[in-house]
Amino acid sequence: MTARLDVDALAARIQAPDAEAAAAARARLARLAKPAGALGRLEDLAVWMAAAQGVSPPRDPERVRVVVFAGDHGVAAAGVSAYPAEVTAQMVGVFLSGNAGVNVLARLAGATVRVVDLAVAADTPAEVSGHKVRRGSGRIDRQDALTPADAERAFAAGIALADEEVDGGADLLIPGDMGIGNTTPAAVLVAAVADVEPAQVVGRGTGVDDAGWMRKATAIRNALRRARPFAADPIALLTVAGGADFAAMTGFLVQAAVRRTPVLLDGVVSGAAALVARSVAPAAPAWWLAGHRSPEPAHRIALDRLRLEPLLDLGMRLGEGTGALVALPLLRAAVRTCAEMATFDEAGVSDRPGG
Amino acid sequence: MTARLDVDALAARIQAPDAEAAAAARARLARLAKPAGALGRLEDLAVWMAAAQGVSPPRDPERVRVVVFAGDHGVAAAGVSAYPAEVTAQMVGVFLSGNAGVNVLARLAGATVRVVDLAVAADTPAEVSGHKVRRGSGRIDRQDALTPADAERAFAAGIALADEEVDGGADLLIPGDMGIGNTTPAAVLVAAVADVEPAQVVGRGTGVDDAGWMRKATAIRNALRRARPFAADPIALLTVAGGADFAAMTGFLVQAAVRRTPVLLDGVVSGAAALVARSVAPAAPAWWLAGHRSPEPAHRIALDRLRLEPLLDLGMRLGEGTGALVALPLLRAAVRTCAEMATFDEAGVSDRPGG
Repeated sequence: MTARLDVDALAARIQAPDAEAAAAARARLARLAKPAGALGRLEDLAVWMAAAQGVSPPRDPERVRVVVFAGDHGVAAAGVSAYPAEVTAQMVGVFLSGNAGVNVLARLAGATVRVVDLAVAADTPAEVSGHKVRRGSGRIDRQDALTPADAERAFAAGIALADEEVDGGADLLIPGDMGIGNTTPAAVLVAAVADVEPAQVVGRGTGVDDAGWMRKATAIRNALRRARPFAADPIALLTVAGGADFAAMTGFLVQAAVRRTPVLLDGVVSGAAALVARSVAPAAPAWWLAGHRSPEPAHRIALDRLRLEPLLDLGMRLGEGTGALVALPLLRAAVRTCAEMATFDEAGVSDRPGG
Repeated sequence: MTARLDVDALAARIQAPDAEAAAAARARLARLAKPAGALGRLEDLAVWMAAAQGVSPPRDPERVRVVVFAGDHGVAAAGVSAYPAEVTAQMVGVFLSGNAGVNVLARLAGATVRVVDLAVAADTPAEVSGHKVRRGSGRIDRQDALTPADAERAFAAGIALADEEVDGGADLLIPGDMGIGNTTPAAVLVAAVADVEPAQVVGRGTGVDDAGWMRKATAIRNALRRARPFAADPIALLTVAGGADFAAMTGFLVQAAVRRTPVLLDGVVSGAAALVARSVAPAAPAWWLAGHRSPEPAHRIALDRLRLEPLLDLGMRLGEGTGALVALPLLRAAVRTCAEMATFDEAGVSDRPGG
């Protein structure tokens, strides 16, 4: 990084999705051989995809890419997680072996998975460490997560990742996450941006016990005290209370919007990054869809503030991109019904009111 | 039909799903490389499938069959629908052409569709009319839907359909419906069994206008007055206030349980049939899963009474089996993660509590 990151210039490049394609999809849905609106939310999804793709009827996405942002968090040392920090690096290995939850669900839903080490505290294979910023982000209840230079590098890595994926043909992106302790910075980021009290965002994460929950609540309160002054400055906020994985995911989400590429969000980590990304780029959320809602209280708050209604509410809290992948077939169902169902005319079905 | 239908003997044949397989699946889920319970509702689904299949880990269903029960309803003449009755027969043609919503969604989800005419008011092709009971069921606000003999024939047709499908290798069944006016008998059946007031079950169906809604409310009130005395006698209730399609679907749902075959329910029509089927066979609901919840108020009541929590709530109200088909990938995701994810041991991941 030499030039200072110009997030305002980046945000200014975001265009709105295609209103004409949206209107054409809406009109097509009205001609399909079914009662008006009978596909419910699927109809809105089809219109959203048509707008994002700029074409009606919308196409079933062909190259769906999950990008898993892996990073450790110094705050794990505060005892905020049910698992030891070494699990982050171990799970990177499981992702590469193809046997983690995200791998199974990606195969089933017709997506592929890329793992990127932004700040794992251990060495990882070369195939995942090309964008590595540092070994572990700082312990946010006591110190900054990142140096300003690291934050910019991580944000820029996220931009580069989105560019690489879109240039590689990705037509739908899913941000996944892996990092022991990462629901703690997620909660802090959400509480800072949404301006809510610490107690409203403390969740169980991977399933911390009561004593761990108390430690987590304390860590969040302390980190939030440090973070509040930067609530309106997204890059500074990521520097103080995020981490390299969060900064990269934020850049990724903004750049996906710049590149007119739809995004299916996952859980509380991508929800927190999305909330920060909206501070960077208020026009970006039009390109994002919420796959599901996790039990993490900060996720509900983030989605509420983003005005994103999740497709699923199944109590999933695994991260990795898994919640979004379970929602992906709903998006495909929406697109395919809009594109493939017969119209009243084609079907020779009466669409006049009955007596 | 010569012998009198013995529903009690039928109900007595239903066994509970396999508790041992359920426990084994639950134990396997606890060993997978993920936090305990992190897959949320998917874990319950995997356990349910293991119990229904009698094997752990559960298998991804290979032959998912949608059986669309088509039938007309005399009560359509009361102006309770937004569409004319001729649409029922027209839609049967669309199903056969493979271009209806149910066809598109079945292809996408890896299922196949069978259409069966139980009581369409017109002639239909031989391939769908083998189980036809009559042309249209009676106008239930003024007369019985069926003769007692027709009700037994229809119920027996449902049993035969379940047997045909299970013998043909079906390992997951989805009951779909097509019939202009069919949300009116559905509402009456639910109100009768659940013992609620007519006003609580009147919905918009395919999208009837305010005047039509008033006519529908009147028809439901009148039909319910005729139906209430038979609320505790399911076959009599189907005779008075159901129809051949409802009676057949009820038999189908009971027989699926007899045959130890899991069922994914769709909308208000299958919800109403399920509620009546539970009156026939209190052990049957253990074999059923609720795919989604439609906006029809009677559907919510039916699911509440059945203690079935729907997987999806997307405002879908197309019928045909479409809501269940949109939910099917969630069931596949549940089964596949349980079967294919690495365990902590296999993955070499630490499952000890962190410090």
